[in-house]
Amino acid sequence: MNYKTDKIKQIIVKKPLKLDCGQTLKDFPLAYETYGELNKKKDNAILVFHALTGDQFASGINPITKREGWWDSAVGPGKAIDTKKYFVICANVLGGCMGTFGPKDKNKENDEPYGLDFPVITIRDMVMAQEALLDHFEIEKLLCALGGSMGGMQLLQFCASFPNRTFSAVPIACSSSHSAQNIALNELARQAIMADPEWEKGNYVKTKNLPKNGLAVARMAGHISYLSEKGLQEKFGRKLQEKANYEFSFNADFQVESYLRHQGYSFVDRFDANSYLYITRAMDYFDLSKQYKNSLSEAFKGNLTKFLVISFSSDWLYPTKHSKDIVIALNASGANVAFAEIKTDKGHDSFLVNEPKFLTTIKGFIDSSYEVYRK
Amino acid sequence: MNYKTDKIKQIIVKKPLKLDCGQTLKDFPLAYETYGELNKKKDNAILVFHALTGDQFASGINPITKREGWWDSAVGPGKAIDTKKYFVICANVLGGCMGTFGPKDKNKENDEPYGLDFPVITIRDMVMAQEALLDHFEIEKLLCALGGSMGGMQLLQFCASFPNRTFSAVPIACSSSHSAQNIALNELARQAIMADPEWEKGNYVKTKNLPKNGLAVARMAGHISYLSEKGLQEKFGRKLQEKANYEFSFNADFQVESYLRHQGYSFVDRFDANSYLYITRAMDYFDLSKQYKNSLSEAFKGNLTKFLVISFSSDWLYPTKHSKDIVIALNASGANVAFAEIKTDKGHDSFLVNEPKFLTTIKGFIDSSYEVYRK
Repeated sequence: MNYKTDKIKQIIVKKPLKLDCGQTLKDFPLAYETYGELNKKKDNAILVFHALTGDQFASGINPITKREGWWDSAVGPGKAIDTKKYFVICANVLGGCMGTFGPKDKNKENDEPYGLDFPVITIRDMVMAQEALLDHFEIEKLLCALGGSMGGMQLLQFCASFPNRTFSAVPIACSSSHSAQNIALNELARQAIMADPEWEKGNYVKTKNLPKNGLAVARMAGHISYLSEKGLQEKFGRKLQEKANYEFSFNADFQVESYLRHQGYSFVDRFDANSYLYITRAMDYFDLSKQYKNSLSEAFKGNLTKFLVISFSSDWLYPTKHSKDIVIALNASGANVAFAEIKTDKGHDSFLVNEPKFLTTIKGFIDSSYEVYRK
Repeated sequence: MNYKTDKIKQIIVKKPLKLDCGQTLKDFPLAYETYGELNKKKDNAILVFHALTGDQFASGINPITKREGWWDSAVGPGKAIDTKKYFVICANVLGGCMGTFGPKDKNKENDEPYGLDFPVITIRDMVMAQEALLDHFEIEKLLCALGGSMGGMQLLQFCASFPNRTFSAVPIACSSSHSAQNIALNELARQAIMADPEWEKGNYVKTKNLPKNGLAVARMAGHISYLSEKGLQEKFGRKLQEKANYEFSFNADFQVESYLRHQGYSFVDRFDANSYLYITRAMDYFDLSKQYKNSLSEAFKGNLTKFLVISFSSDWLYPTKHSKDIVIALNASGANVAFAEIKTDKGHDSFLVNEPKFLTTIKGFIDSSYEVYRK
């Protein structure tokens, strides 16, 4: 996370942002990236919201981590979200760690990193902050907005808070509020981080320590929930790690153990542990209907956006039922809504990997939306 | 775990036990408990195998922890496994921490606790050790043997290793080999324990430290996997913990968070972290077919035991498919086998809680087995 800031584009959000917790932020940085060109009519803009551990670098190679952007499977020239045709914008969320204002930033009042003095933020706060980006590009209305997982939650919030600010919207593998199991899995991750003595009650940034072990365990828990039982079985089964038989030790005998350890410990180089706490908290607090008299359909009343809700058959983190509840509410609000459950064994991660049925579906939807919208 | 040994019954296993790892154990303690009376014909004995975190105290109040025995819902006077009629035996598994030989015991060679010098054991080793108990009671053939989760794995191993040593058998919510997801969840728990600096590479017993945080996180992960999504939702949903609104902090706002923290941190008083490592390792290594030319039906060839395989519809840790694979193998081996999937929202934990359909099923099966067997 020692990035050179010249690789990160930022705007300073000047308009005061009253957070759900009561505090007000102003003059804070919001990092973003864009792909493709905004046309003169400004009718080809697509906003993409990232998930828990994502960032603004959706496409190509992430200049900070040197790894593939998190949505490179979908975003790029000639891809499903075609950057030869469309102008794609993606911002790092509030509370994140890739250039947008977050807990590792310094508090101007005492010149120390915030740590747990950073305000607890919500999905709504994240979305409110990102509005500044549309103003920055002077885009009145987006062609489309998409998001998977927590990205989908931001998108639902965006459509509710800024009705008709996008012509079409694709919430993917998400939920309008976390289930008890969702909260439990996030709490497990938070407990793993906070159990690490090097977390130092959130103050590790000051002492140059890193709660590596805790964050790695949190990430391992995440990874298990992103894959389906069948997907894990097909990928790893009981295959051993370059050995003919059990070692009768606690080394990684099974390939799936080695995979988890790698996923866990490679994550700590690129992600801030406190950001993980803040962002999972925002996900758990998200409950869109609560903002609208406990009626989810109320959130979308009068909305003219064209919705396509997508779920994946083997996603047990945000199972299809969560998406269907969104579809029911959208229908009850009289919205224009289509729904697709993609049959796949790839679990929650399906939207991030090369899943042809999914990619074809979003490509068709965006392209046809553009045909209608540009007229 | 500072128990008075007069509350724990032990036998010393004298017969050398050649472990799967190659080492040989002898003269080691095996702790057990019994409920009810063995009749003169010795035809009313039931062996119960415990799961990962269980022990020999299945029924009544556990004299060490002062809490309810782990299977008090099923075992006791007038209960499904009726101790007024039957003699129930339960042993603490090898590698455990309730009086059977395990990693917290002292190595006679250097008078220090074994820690990671304890040999890595397998489900087969556990079962081989428990045979000594049948010899101790001079029971040639059991009326019935039952086990849920890892208890079911031990039972499958028992039936394969000691064919016809039990008249009937009820493997519950188990698997003949861990899936990649099962291994991944156990590895997550192990990583949580080993990430705790107070684990001290397994040597915490020598320094009087305790990897409390790591073990608590491991237990939290376990608890999430023991409950179904629907069960968690019905029990907790998004209910807040004695507060009207979010606290905008990292305290336990949701009841499900508070529940997990409680389950995690109350566990560390009664369970040894190294035992958790060893026992989960044994579960992951278990692959019954591997012992029988990669054919599960070969494991049960010629077996005259009357089997009842039980699964729970909402168990995602050992889904019904795992049980059906056992049923298929038993059928292929020509065994006498019945199968019941109990519809319930209580998840993997269904066998431990008051689930009337389950309790009625095992009661009927055991009682009718006894009618046939005693003739």
